[in-house]
Amino acid sequence: MSQNIYDNEIFFIEYMKLRNEKSYNDLLEQPEINKLLPDIKGKTILDIGCGYGHNSLLFAQNGAKKVIGIDISQKMLEVAKKESCHPCIEYRQMDMSEILALTQKFDMVYSSLAFHYAENFQKLIKDVYDLLNKGGYLIYSQEHPIVTATMDCKGHHNLDENGNFVSYTFSDYAKSGQRVGTWFVDGVINYHRSMGEIVSTLAHTGFMITDMIEPTPEAWALEEKPDLMKEFIKPTFLIIKARKSEFSCDC
Amino acid sequence: MSQNIYDNEIFFIEYMKLRNEKSYNDLLEQPEINKLLPDIKGKTILDIGCGYGHNSLLFAQNGAKKVIGIDISQKMLEVAKKESCHPCIEYRQMDMSEILALTQKFDMVYSSLAFHYAENFQKLIKDVYDLLNKGGYLIYSQEHPIVTATMDCKGHHNLDENGNFVSYTFSDYAKSGQRVGTWFVDGVINYHRSMGEIVSTLAHTGFMITDMIEPTPEAWALEEKPDLMKEFIKPTFLIIKARKSEFSCDC
Repeated sequence: MSQNIYDNEIFFIEYMKLRNEKSYNDLLEQPEINKLLPDIKGKTILDIGCGYGHNSLLFAQNGAKKVIGIDISQKMLEVAKKESCHPCIEYRQMDMSEILALTQKFDMVYSSLAFHYAENFQKLIKDVYDLLNKGGYLIYSQEHPIVTATMDCKGHHNLDENGNFVSYTFSDYAKSGQRVGTWFVDGVINYHRSMGEIVSTLAHTGFMITDMIEPTPEAWALEEKPDLMKEFIKPTFLIIKARKSEFSCDC
Repeated sequence: MSQNIYDNEIFFIEYMKLRNEKSYNDLLEQPEINKLLPDIKGKTILDIGCGYGHNSLLFAQNGAKKVIGIDISQKMLEVAKKESCHPCIEYRQMDMSEILALTQKFDMVYSSLAFHYAENFQKLIKDVYDLLNKGGYLIYSQEHPIVTATMDCKGHHNLDENGNFVSYTFSDYAKSGQRVGTWFVDGVINYHRSMGEIVSTLAHTGFMITDMIEPTPEAWALEEKPDLMKEFIKPTFLIIKARKSEFSCDC
């Protein structure tokens, strides 16, 4: 079971405030992950960690036949049901460790910035694989392994004498497992996994990886937030697209 | 065309000296890459950047039908022909940008720590793909992208007050391209590519990635060289195994 930090009162209030300004997600992660979307007209989609439901709504508005949005947070789902309501969308409170309770199959499993909360990555990827139709896609983003690596969560950028970002310092990259840090509140739990662990887990489960993106800002995003230049020093996000083969590959 | 630094007199003498002690390659890279080898009995193998030929010899001694070992360095090949001679092995002086000059196909293309010297990675991967039989494997290692990233090649470990390694500082991860550094001599040219660029290039060419390893030392290696503890801070090598599909996958 993942931690339900989004139902923490203080966390939720602070997280909601993020919506008043363009976030890293808006400027970096969302533009890049959306480029990977296949044609979703008539498709069935599972949105894991759907939050406010803005992606579920996007899929429904673009012709998806059915979208199931799950999230562990009741508070997030209340916002989703109010702001991202659509006849093709069903919102359910569910932890991502329990998705096998869903009885239907999907053409796409999508997840924006939730998988780093999953304790058992191997099980999650296997469950997603089992829920996908043949030829179906997994498209997901997570915090970049370089960011989740450092044991005390104190990976940090370094500045030169003029206050410009010049480098990034991290540690513990090869030590897979839980990290407890602070994001609005203390005790926020993430799980770190190396690139090797992520890629090999997907491949050994049977997925064909078709794309890996470590987003950098486009010109319009840099204009909005010049600090995004530091994405060229080290990436913040990792985005992966993988496919379940249409036939039984000998691989 | 890659730089031919191994034929530099000073570089070659210094590089030869490495053989007197167990190197990072012996302790970290070779044990892990060898775990990925398929059954090579009766197979045809291309060894890109074969150096002294110790891997080509290993393949021949384990029953490979034919091994072609190529290297850009005449000096390295002279050692290979003397020390790693075998009736099934043919050594040729050839840059890895010119492998399409080979007229036969291979069951496996292997390369240990050479691909970071390739200027045009996309062409190299496409050429390897074209040279492989269906179902054939590419197994290769390179310097890890976190190591090749920093523009002035000055990525570095940081020490605590007791002289223990505690973290690693790097920069320029998202800036793909040439890096000029020092390794025995000045002016050694590598090419940096991000994980995203590497994985997506392999996938878009048609390869199915089956394994990715960022080696960490086993107990016996740590005993030999306790400093290898710093591999848990950041990896030195990246190893990838990928396969050319046996049939035309729709992916």
